[in-house]
Amino acid sequence: MPSEIATLEVATPGRGFHEISQELQNVVVQSDVSVGLCHVFLRHTSASLLITENADPDVRRDLESFISKLAPDGDPAYTHSMEGPDDMPAHIRSVLTCSELTIPIRNGRLALGTWQGVYLWEHRVRPHRRRIDVTVIA
Amino acid sequence: MPSEIATLEVATPGRGFHEISQELQNVVVQSDVSVGLCHVFLRHTSASLLITENADPDVRRDLESFISKLAPDGDPAYTHSMEGPDDMPAHIRSVLTCSELTIPIRNGRLALGTWQGVYLWEHRVRPHRRRIDVTVIA
Amino acid sequence: MPSEIATLEVATPGRGFHEISQELQNVVVQSDVSVGLCHVFLRHTSASLLITENADPDVRRDLESFISKLAPDGDPAYTHSMEGPDDMPAHIRSVLTCSELTIPIRNGRLALGTWQGVYLWEHRVRPHRRRIDVTVIA
Repeated sequence: MPSEIATLEVATPGRGFHEISQELQNVVVQSDVSVGLCHVFLRHTSASLLITENADPDVRRDLESFISKLAPDGDPAYTHSMEGPDDMPAHIRSVLTCSELTIPIRNGRLALGTWQGVYLWEHRVRPHRRRIDVTVIA
Repeated sequence: MPSEIATLEVATPGRGFHEISQELQNVVVQSDVSVGLCHVFLRHTSASLLITENADPDVRRDLESFISKLAPDGDPAYTHSMEGPDDMPAHIRSVLTCSELTIPIRNGRLALGTWQGVYLWEHRVRPHRRRIDVTVIA
Repeated sequence: MPSEIATLEVATPGRGFHEISQELQNVVVQSDVSVGLCHVFLRHTSASLLITENADPDVRRDLESFISKLAPDGDPAYTHSMEGPDDMPAHIRSVLTCSELTIPIRNGRLALGTWQGVYLWEHRVRPHRRRIDVTVIA
């Protein structure tokens, strides 16, 4: 049996980054696990989980602008466009990044580097309710 | 000891997507694990494992067409071309996506979202035999 | 409790690939685990961990040249440029690839495919000291 499982519900205001490092730390503390692994899984294909720099918000702005150019909204090349001009690019962004992560636990805490934050990256333009499943194993 | 290990052999007909969600569910059911994690690992560097939308096949078609433009076959910029024009782009596609995934198990089943399917994405043009190692832990 | 934990310190000479497969094998052998999983985590957001072809070094050269064109150093589109022209592209490369990997253990060894090697991919131009946390579970 895992030492702890939890479900996080995140209401995103639309495209952009939402840090979840603290919510994950809370689950780890709750688990009482000192050394182990914390697995995080996003139940969606039009958003991502990622670890990136948590200091300068310009990093996230540049990531958003980079990926928007790489997989532009409303590209006429997309066949799948019924759900809006931001839907197919959202699937592409999801595939180019991650929808699940495993992070080590040391001394009862997520062993993230000093500059690492864990983010939910919403790729759809309109607000969405996102579900994340967390599993702590020792 | 893991609760269950299994090896899946997939014969791909060449470039494209092959869903393996059901084969993975079978391994999970076989394991009798109610709550845990299922790890899936691809032993190759010219194909990928990914989670993407399982409803409209146009999504997969658009993913294929997006990545074909991003890392085109036979690009004269590639130095590594001995094994054919689709070999170096296959390695690039593999690096930009994933070759391993961990998926939570809840209620004795893979806890995938409604629209999530797990796929082997073959990047080589000709048929290949691909090996996937599955590990279930509780 | 995990069967084994370890920390690898890698001094990179600057941008490029550094294979860590053997160091990981050593941790697995040390753990005495016959069947299980080995998790590898990089504590940084401007380098990556990846599995790619370990035979022809041209593959790594072509990967480097591909990603350098995709996210060029010093692109005037970047807002985050205080830490040098290679800093924002390093974060982009990190997000497009992986900063953590899980690899199955079979017969007391990492069950990598014949052509798979595990690499630390340094994205910064100058030398860096990188820390990798390894967790072996059975």
